[in-house]
Amino acid sequence: MESNLTGADVFFVLLGAILVFAMHGGFAFLEVGTVRHKNQVNALIKILVDFAISTLSYFFIGYMVAYGVHFFVDAAVLSGGGAGFEGQGLSLVKFFFLATFAAAIPAIISGGIAERASFWPQCIATGLIVGLIYPFFEGIVWNGNFGLQSWLENSFGASFHDFAGSVVVHAVGGWMALGAVLLLGPRLGRYTRSGKLVGILPSSIPWLAMGSWMLCIGWFGFNVMSAQSLKGVTGLVAINSLMAMVGGILAALIVGRKDPGFVHNGALAGLVAVCAGSDIMHPMGSLVVGAVAGWIFVTFFTLCENRWKIDDVLGVWPLHGLCGAWGGLAAGIFGMEALGGMGGVSLMAQIIGTLSGSAYAFAAGLVIYGLLKTTIGIRLSEDDEFKGADLAIHKISAAPEADMTKF
Amino acid sequence: MESNLTGADVFFVLLGAILVFAMHGGFAFLEVGTVRHKNQVNALIKILVDFAISTLSYFFIGYMVAYGVHFFVDAAVLSGGGAGFEGQGLSLVKFFFLATFAAAIPAIISGGIAERASFWPQCIATGLIVGLIYPFFEGIVWNGNFGLQSWLENSFGASFHDFAGSVVVHAVGGWMALGAVLLLGPRLGRYTRSGKLVGILPSSIPWLAMGSWMLCIGWFGFNVMSAQSLKGVTGLVAINSLMAMVGGILAALIVGRKDPGFVHNGALAGLVAVCAGSDIMHPMGSLVVGAVAGWIFVTFFTLCENRWKIDDVLGVWPLHGLCGAWGGLAAGIFGMEALGGMGGVSLMAQIIGTLSGSAYAFAAGLVIYGLLKTTIGIRLSEDDEFKGADLAIHKISAAPEADMTKF
Amino acid sequence: MESNLTGADVFFVLLGAILVFAMHGGFAFLEVGTVRHKNQVNALIKILVDFAISTLSYFFIGYMVAYGVHFFVDAAVLSGGGAGFEGQGLSLVKFFFLATFAAAIPAIISGGIAERASFWPQCIATGLIVGLIYPFFEGIVWNGNFGLQSWLENSFGASFHDFAGSVVVHAVGGWMALGAVLLLGPRLGRYTRSGKLVGILPSSIPWLAMGSWMLCIGWFGFNVMSAQSLKGVTGLVAINSLMAMVGGILAALIVGRKDPGFVHNGALAGLVAVCAGSDIMHPMGSLVVGAVAGWIFVTFFTLCENRWKIDDVLGVWPLHGLCGAWGGLAAGIFGMEALGGMGGVSLMAQIIGTLSGSAYAFAAGLVIYGLLKTTIGIRLSEDDEFKGADLAIHKISAAPEADMTKF
Repeated sequence: MESNLTGADVFFVLLGAILVFAMHGGFAFLEVGTVRHKNQVNALIKILVDFAISTLSYFFIGYMVAYGVHFFVDAAVLSGGGAGFEGQGLSLVKFFFLATFAAAIPAIISGGIAERASFWPQCIATGLIVGLIYPFFEGIVWNGNFGLQSWLENSFGASFHDFAGSVVVHAVGGWMALGAVLLLGPRLGRYTRSGKLVGILPSSIPWLAMGSWMLCIGWFGFNVMSAQSLKGVTGLVAINSLMAMVGGILAALIVGRKDPGFVHNGALAGLVAVCAGSDIMHPMGSLVVGAVAGWIFVTFFTLCENRWKIDDVLGVWPLHGLCGAWGGLAAGIFGMEALGGMGGVSLMAQIIGTLSGSAYAFAAGLVIYGLLKTTIGIRLSEDDEFKGADLAIHKISAAPEADMTKF
Repeated sequence: MESNLTGADVFFVLLGAILVFAMHGGFAFLEVGTVRHKNQVNALIKILVDFAISTLSYFFIGYMVAYGVHFFVDAAVLSGGGAGFEGQGLSLVKFFFLATFAAAIPAIISGGIAERASFWPQCIATGLIVGLIYPFFEGIVWNGNFGLQSWLENSFGASFHDFAGSVVVHAVGGWMALGAVLLLGPRLGRYTRSGKLVGILPSSIPWLAMGSWMLCIGWFGFNVMSAQSLKGVTGLVAINSLMAMVGGILAALIVGRKDPGFVHNGALAGLVAVCAGSDIMHPMGSLVVGAVAGWIFVTFFTLCENRWKIDDVLGVWPLHGLCGAWGGLAAGIFGMEALGGMGGVSLMAQIIGTLSGSAYAFAAGLVIYGLLKTTIGIRLSEDDEFKGADLAIHKISAAPEADMTKF
Repeated sequence: MESNLTGADVFFVLLGAILVFAMHGGFAFLEVGTVRHKNQVNALIKILVDFAISTLSYFFIGYMVAYGVHFFVDAAVLSGGGAGFEGQGLSLVKFFFLATFAAAIPAIISGGIAERASFWPQCIATGLIVGLIYPFFEGIVWNGNFGLQSWLENSFGASFHDFAGSVVVHAVGGWMALGAVLLLGPRLGRYTRSGKLVGILPSSIPWLAMGSWMLCIGWFGFNVMSAQSLKGVTGLVAINSLMAMVGGILAALIVGRKDPGFVHNGALAGLVAVCAGSDIMHPMGSLVVGAVAGWIFVTFFTLCENRWKIDDVLGVWPLHGLCGAWGGLAAGIFGMEALGGMGGVSLMAQIIGTLSGSAYAFAAGLVIYGLLKTTIGIRLSEDDEFKGADLAIHKISAAPEADMTKF
């Protein structure tokens, strides 16, 4: 009986891990569709390899940094708390689940630095970020490390509430990406000498859409399974995710004038923003949070491109950085009882948590990619960038049979 | 303990909702592969936006029409029956699950009216259909509204049995689509002046196949999770769905002479037809039901194209309308104990339920699209249709990078 | 209460079946991306139709061969053990789950014989293999038929351990495919008269990658749900699958010099190899097992192509045959307590089980495809092979709209 309930929790968290793992496929295909044909293979390899490196880095170092538990040396932990290999390994699927979260950081960054970043430096950055940078902040928020959460609770009546990672995962990923994007500079030919924007068109809307669908589908695991036990699961998280996604789609449809890139990313914007407060907001609140996120994405994506000349290829800073930060703040607003939420949140704690997470990530992004830039370099040669990362790095294009007939 | 069991039900129904949500991706890619290149983006946006509008329409109006429960005003309902936000929100995931069913109606219609329908009128139709038309019939069948079910039970010994919606969802969607397709008329150049059929070729078999796979995979959630509780789940529904799908594939393979469009839609035909009786038929019965559905799809798709000059682009009337109606009748035939079924069905009740659902939907389709046609119009201008819905409505094509080099 | 726990098991095994069913979509798209454009439709139809034939063959014959239970005649079994149709059909979802395993055999073979095999002979082979050949060995290993397992246990202290089918499914499929590939001979123009390899390029890396992602995602169901009950589920299987996949990715990345075909198949190689011992190995052991599998795949794929002139299009013999055999042996090595495993395995039993399974499958492949070759033929005519299986068999290409403009 007891083991049946444990088994059900293993099943529940495992499904969450599988769904978030599927989101990584989504990251890959979203990038495949958004970049030019000559960089599609590289997008696919980057996401898959970053996932592999992240898993190892989080297994050997990161998980210990965040939760003080070392899988490698502590065989008992492997069994889910029992001795040796007995038990049902609940702690192991929780590791799997959280590892797929950690691996989202390099997957987010990948979309920003696409089409011009070199391969191995990004692998090194992934190892450092997932092993040290990300779990340091993750542990502060989700494991109460260093006492920030208890200080917030004592000072403002509530700790920083980030149920499924609007800030811990998305804002951190997006702001770190901004650092990398700034250090990398825009793609060749992106702006004329006089600074005018040159359109670089995406290769494939169907692949972009497939990426978005895989992300949306998996996201319900990202959010709902963040409860990490059947005792804690709630349908409220599911419906709030749904409403925020819907709000993001419709806002992006209108603000983005039916552009397919905006609409498909609008769904993601809503989902990014709802993570933090999905367990405490009213569905109507979530709808508003998602709609605002859709507006944020379209507006700031356009500002980055046209005004600020930040060449963030997939718009990961507006999408994850800004909508994630908005989600952190929104949990403090729409989580309030006055706005239909369940209460128990402090807007001040949300502001402090959100700002510190974003600032920390931006600084870390600048430091890590800055160090790599000044030592081994982070950018392809002009020749390689012109040729495309596929032929330059992988010696094959995305449509080898068809492309060969062109030569 | 109790909350653990409730949690397991939340998990179960949630997985159903996620799987049916994934089917909407399937609808999108099935249409992407079947339409011409110049209408692929529009297919993607239509399905995603229809899903968003459907969710809101069903949340604010439709669910109340069907079940008399208003989510918006009744905060207690939001918690799954408890007070305020406590509880585990089982009722909320049930809403999510049923909302993904409701959203299937515009997704079905979308495939029939593809390549020539204008955008906003379809959004308005979606709002009306999911808010009023669909839930009105849904409530009659699944909530016993207006006493039809009890009258059938008193008159024929059994109410109308439609476990997972062969009629409530598929026949209703397909017959409503027929009304829209007839009012819209065939695509430009579909028939010569003398009425001869002109072939309009699909753009991509792999995308068509991907859509079919996503639909097939999600369909096991559509059918099995229709039990809506772990107490009611049965493996019989799963194996019946499997057998009907297999029957549909093989019948379409033979009747359709190995054509990939027929084979991939044949799987769907079998799944449409098995919904109604999947909980009461014998697997052998389901195999026959699926095979007949595969034959129906191929035969009537061909008749629509060649004989009747109905330009139903994806064949949604044969697929959902006719195979759905066949499924409603088949539950009354193969559900009988004499044919290996579990009994407790009345063929007469099945005939009445199926015919009334189909007739109601056909009439509603004619009325709604007729009103829209005479007021704001439902069809793209000839210029826009020729240019394609992608460039006309969305100002971008499905392969922007490659298409730009053509000009 | 009791039925709630049964219901949870039905849910658990069903999810496994759905995930492995999704893997068949993965097989289809992996082949679509790897073959040339002119054979993409055929790849899709082969996998879907093979799945349908496999289901029927396993339902009517195969399941009885392996487990001595006949679904067709025994109506009581249909209800999951109770009388008539009562109960929750747990045995039915177990059949569904195991049927998706059985259908993997023709899906594996399909990748080896691609681009030149004729259609109906392959359908006949599928029926024979899934009805007789596969379940004969499956029953010996997983049902203790013919006493091999008890003889091994008496002789070596442990029976042949193959938790999720490294040998029963993958090695058997891969070695059978080798027989078929040898009898079929290489594709037209694959080698010059002097025996030099001519490159035949894959059509699409994104579709190849999509196939790999679908396989990887579904594989967690393949492995974890092999426990077949919540009481037996363990997170160890999940994390071991994860670590082996990661090992396969990274080894293939390095040995395969960042080639996208190698990296995406490297993930699969690791997953093939971990099936057998995923329930008894340490995650560190699984990482090594996966990395070795990645190396095996790249090395032997290259040897087949260049040295041995075996034209195994997707490399299914190295991938499933060799990595599967390696997995069978590895369970006996890394399952030992000395190497961090849970013990209870015998290397000798693993060697005997692995070799006998591989030899049996290779011989069966030669016999079945040999008989078909000498009677009805197994290969397309030269004309049809040149034209491509799509136009030859299915009368349509993979991109009909675009391809028509070429003529």
